[in-house]
Amino acid sequence: MSSKVRIALDAMGGDHGPSVVIPGAAEALARHADIEFLLFGDQSVIAPLLDAHPALKACARIVHTDVAVTMDDKPSQALRRTRRASSMWMAIESVKNGEADVVVSAGNTGALMAMSTICLRTMAGVDRPAIAAMWPTLRGRSIVLDVGATIGADAQHLVDLAIMGSAMARIVLAISCPTVGLLNVGVEEIKGIEEVKAAGRTLREGQIGGLDYKGFVEGDDIGKGTVDVVVTEGFTGNIALKTAEGTAKQLAEVLREGMSSSLLTKIGYLFARSAFRSLKEKMDPRNVNGGVFLGLDGIVIKSHGGTDATGFGNAIGIGFDMVRHELLGKIRTSLAESDDRRIALTAEMDARA
Amino acid sequence: MSSKVRIALDAMGGDHGPSVVIPGAAEALARHADIEFLLFGDQSVIAPLLDAHPALKACARIVHTDVAVTMDDKPSQALRRTRRASSMWMAIESVKNGEADVVVSAGNTGALMAMSTICLRTMAGVDRPAIAAMWPTLRGRSIVLDVGATIGADAQHLVDLAIMGSAMARIVLAISCPTVGLLNVGVEEIKGIEEVKAAGRTLREGQIGGLDYKGFVEGDDIGKGTVDVVVTEGFTGNIALKTAEGTAKQLAEVLREGMSSSLLTKIGYLFARSAFRSLKEKMDPRNVNGGVFLGLDGIVIKSHGGTDATGFGNAIGIGFDMVRHELLGKIRTSLAESDDRRIALTAEMDARA
Repeated sequence: MSSKVRIALDAMGGDHGPSVVIPGAAEALARHADIEFLLFGDQSVIAPLLDAHPALKACARIVHTDVAVTMDDKPSQALRRTRRASSMWMAIESVKNGEADVVVSAGNTGALMAMSTICLRTMAGVDRPAIAAMWPTLRGRSIVLDVGATIGADAQHLVDLAIMGSAMARIVLAISCPTVGLLNVGVEEIKGIEEVKAAGRTLREGQIGGLDYKGFVEGDDIGKGTVDVVVTEGFTGNIALKTAEGTAKQLAEVLREGMSSSLLTKIGYLFARSAFRSLKEKMDPRNVNGGVFLGLDGIVIKSHGGTDATGFGNAIGIGFDMVRHELLGKIRTSLAESDDRRIALTAEMDARA
Repeated sequence: MSSKVRIALDAMGGDHGPSVVIPGAAEALARHADIEFLLFGDQSVIAPLLDAHPALKACARIVHTDVAVTMDDKPSQALRRTRRASSMWMAIESVKNGEADVVVSAGNTGALMAMSTICLRTMAGVDRPAIAAMWPTLRGRSIVLDVGATIGADAQHLVDLAIMGSAMARIVLAISCPTVGLLNVGVEEIKGIEEVKAAGRTLREGQIGGLDYKGFVEGDDIGKGTVDVVVTEGFTGNIALKTAEGTAKQLAEVLREGMSSSLLTKIGYLFARSAFRSLKEKMDPRNVNGGVFLGLDGIVIKSHGGTDATGFGNAIGIGFDMVRHELLGKIRTSLAESDDRRIALTAEMDARA
């Protein structure tokens, strides 16, 4: 790693492409001076936008391609040979080749996950990748994973998710020993599916370093912020995340309608504007923008496709932190320690037998 | 069935027992005159409460027992022999014996489900029971099932859930052919777990009467009200429901804090009170109180444990509607039609082979 963090951007990704990516990069650079950018995409679109941001232009290099993965491409389409000339693939490949430390894309999630997995491959000892999302809670922020990379999980994969999510939490939440909960339909040990119960036993008895296992948590514990890291497999995690997003939008819509229903409520809205602003800020999806792909041999950050420059800048900021605080090294160390511990436990059991 | 609907109440169930159950029954009676009540529980507590509601007293009979299932009892504890003298078991048994048409309890969900399944047994052709919940949406209300009775589901069980949920929707939502969606992590046919994909094929090709299958829906479609009936297995359904409840509480809490943060916001709150009232009404859990146990040979309604008399009265109202509009008959007919259709399809395939 050079003294600067080298960030590859899929400049064509997302609903708005370079018109959001470039100003987003400029915002990130204003907060973190030691970045170098590699911008993958259409030079004729990117270059004029860069002219508006001289500081960014000074530390960015454009790598031209006129192929882009669209938001509607299926993962299988994205993986076709021709797509390896796309801005998304080339940005990922720059991480594999060691030209960049992290890649950030607002492009289509399925394609990004498929390309990242094929190009970077999973880390030694991890079978399948995961997506970790940041979730605003009453206590601040928590990390929820997997929100949709992998459907289904055996006990070992759930334990790996706990280890990887904790490594990420130590960086993002700046907590040395984050609390971890397994998402379940009840908090008693006898509840739930077999895989979750087995993962609970391992986490309880395995004395895995760097995390503080708190047992099972339920759906409403996520928003309460009961634990720093909520672990679940990708099907349930994706549905929980989207259900929460849907509920938040639903409440906002009902409130908006109510607030514009009469002169009185409109006046009330004016007086109480600061309260609504505070609600909006606390629940602002831009503040938690940036899903982290975990379990791959390289760092990939997925920005929401529809976000603005501030949101995209935040996703870049997460990527920056993950590199600076050595996410991959932390995960590798934790996984190795957990393996050692497992081997020691097995040896103890053998000695007793 | 007598001309009146005979409703058995577990008077000791819930956080507040008879002090909510009795006034709740009075509220339900004020809305639906043709009810007879069987009240199971402690006569010495119930009788004085009944005196305050002469109309209710005139159509209610107390069946005394001093045994009650507690909110903390595990299902296994509730199933012990001694518990068969409990108000919960006796109320369920009155449905089995034909003394009542439906039972309503605010008691502990696990115990109620275990006792109901043991006592009433599943309907012919249905392997395992489900809990259907009403969910407030931007369009009105939808039905989501299973929200936690059964963990895991094969394709056939998911199809049965669609059929049973639709029968309930025809009654509660008064729609002759409700729209149905399978909860999944994407709307494309190739997405998701195998069981869900297989159920999707059957629902699409099976031309099952009384429902209009719309394909896959995602978590945020629930709150939008994209379909009338959302089908998923109990683990995911329970987590989705609780995650939504958690998110709603979280937003309400942030808004409440914001509204009481300064004099200005407090004044604003006063002016805009009607908007908050409208939000509160639209999202009032009492309006959607009453989970329906489906797939059993008898109708069981689960009220929220912490609800008040109005909420409990609404749960009774749902039980009343289910009996009046013959939920069990509708489910049996739909399941039989679906079986016939399946046999016909198989015969067609044999003829072609």
